[in-house]
Amino acid sequence: MPDIKILNEGDLRHAVQLDADAVNCIENAFELLATRDVAMPPILSMHIPEQNGELDVKTAYVPGIPSFAVKMSPGFFDNPKLGFPSVNGLMVVFSAKTGLVEAVLLDNGYLTDVRTAAAGAVAAKYLSRQNATVAGIIGTGTQARLQLEALLLVRNIERAIIWGRDQDKADACAADCDQQLGIETVATSSVDELAAASDIIVTTTPSTVPILNAEHLHAGLHVTAMGSDADYKTELAPEFLMGADRYICDRLAQCRKQGELRGAIEAGLITEDTVLPELGEIVAGRAPGRRSETEITICDLTGMGIQDTAIAAQAMKRSNASQTGTIFLS
Amino acid sequence: MPDIKILNEGDLRHAVQLDADAVNCIENAFELLATRDVAMPPILSMHIPEQNGELDVKTAYVPGIPSFAVKMSPGFFDNPKLGFPSVNGLMVVFSAKTGLVEAVLLDNGYLTDVRTAAAGAVAAKYLSRQNATVAGIIGTGTQARLQLEALLLVRNIERAIIWGRDQDKADACAADCDQQLGIETVATSSVDELAAASDIIVTTTPSTVPILNAEHLHAGLHVTAMGSDADYKTELAPEFLMGADRYICDRLAQCRKQGELRGAIEAGLITEDTVLPELGEIVAGRAPGRRSETEITICDLTGMGIQDTAIAAQAMKRSNASQTGTIFLS
Repeated sequence: MPDIKILNEGDLRHAVQLDADAVNCIENAFELLATRDVAMPPILSMHIPEQNGELDVKTAYVPGIPSFAVKMSPGFFDNPKLGFPSVNGLMVVFSAKTGLVEAVLLDNGYLTDVRTAAAGAVAAKYLSRQNATVAGIIGTGTQARLQLEALLLVRNIERAIIWGRDQDKADACAADCDQQLGIETVATSSVDELAAASDIIVTTTPSTVPILNAEHLHAGLHVTAMGSDADYKTELAPEFLMGADRYICDRLAQCRKQGELRGAIEAGLITEDTVLPELGEIVAGRAPGRRSETEITICDLTGMGIQDTAIAAQAMKRSNASQTGTIFLS
Repeated sequence: MPDIKILNEGDLRHAVQLDADAVNCIENAFELLATRDVAMPPILSMHIPEQNGELDVKTAYVPGIPSFAVKMSPGFFDNPKLGFPSVNGLMVVFSAKTGLVEAVLLDNGYLTDVRTAAAGAVAAKYLSRQNATVAGIIGTGTQARLQLEALLLVRNIERAIIWGRDQDKADACAADCDQQLGIETVATSSVDELAAASDIIVTTTPSTVPILNAEHLHAGLHVTAMGSDADYKTELAPEFLMGADRYICDRLAQCRKQGELRGAIEAGLITEDTVLPELGEIVAGRAPGRRSETEITICDLTGMGIQDTAIAAQAMKRSNASQTGTIFLS
């Protein structure tokens, strides 16, 4: 059997960063999803109520990418009490030709962070106004910081506003972004204020009740909702979603069940079988991106196995080139 | 983050063998499935037609087992032309308390082979005649050999008969078993002859057309059908299945879609919602095992994530005790 490469989080942080290359990698993945015969089965989800835990497994085979990844994401929400992060995980990379294991990427969720933020950049690139300068970030965690950083790669953001349920965390997040990203960033205690001032809003929370409501809609706004990825999460009120000019998603079948679309379907505002455009179709030129300065657009991102396969392949290419990682004799 | 243990196939062959302990381990897993609040999501399956490949991912969380495994089984059927086996794969072991990765078991499918054969032993222990002495094995691959070896752990098998589509392979398999297992083993070119002479038959093929038909039924026969694990495979004619006195399966929901039950449902001989006993209920004493010397019994095994979690936990316990494996600093 061929040898197997093991890459730890340090190796992977060295190989892949949230930069223009990462955005290109994920943009390309969206295009391939729309144009090639991708195999992407539904997410395997396991709930473990007695441990306050869950596991998601995602994968995709993509013609044109020489490997495919299986990404395992456990979330065990009592971990912080034990001194461990809630979410971690790893990817296993298989040859797309033989199915043989090529590598184990012990990334503790790092590659997921990067590919998720990169998808936010792709959404903003195609759907937000070219002249957007103010970004509003809902949430104060890792993705709040990374989604803002990702926006800087595609738009000339001059100012950012952070809102979170916990004002201290919002202040800390704003201070971090201000210092590390070099743009003026402030925290606010008012979602209304954030929404009114923002050209682009990214929602990054695991909220189970809507945060953005119909009164937050205004001409020219683009919203990327990336927090909801389960059938009990939501960040956008159904009336907010329906009040926008366009709703675009990463994967329609998935967003009907686990994205913001679920709430609108459950509220009876849209039927389950309504066909709506996917972001990949826009990237591939098969559906239009933003059509005017005043259009209100929403992009609903639930996260897809194809992003994992794409970023894992990028990590493999880079680590092979730099000869990092540990070879394990199988 | 805690360190991670990496075990290769050699380590795992040293830690776990097909023996009474392995049968106990899997028997216990069947009992837990019937008696505890096990989380076992549907199998994630990905088909990759352009590479003649597929991937199955299985997992289960079992109260009482301190870890859970995610098992990835790729099958790439053009591999033999390239000098690689068709089926291989690995397991990742997570802490059931924190979801943190504990180990990567690079077993190339070895643990799957053991847990699959051990389930055959459990089926025969509860469902075949105590005085069974003749075993018929349909198929000539790895599981043909292992299923016969597994029967020897639970019944006093004196003679075995092997049938395969390829007579040379059947002869080779019979010669191997005769020599390695120390019981008289012969190959036959006649399924009829095999069926008539056997007290226990184990079917181990990926056949897409039935091999055993209604005329092969005879008083006291037990059949374990473990080859079909996909919606296009079958080894038992629907009339054979319905002609038996009892049909028992490993997981009812799964056997309706991927086991022998599928064919009987499609033939209209049984309704999809018919409730049938699972092997775990028999192990747990909640349903009877064999009820008479003359009863004809069938056990349909499609393979379950709980077997993977159980055998992986056994491998971890053994390798921790013997301090085998490589510690990887994460």
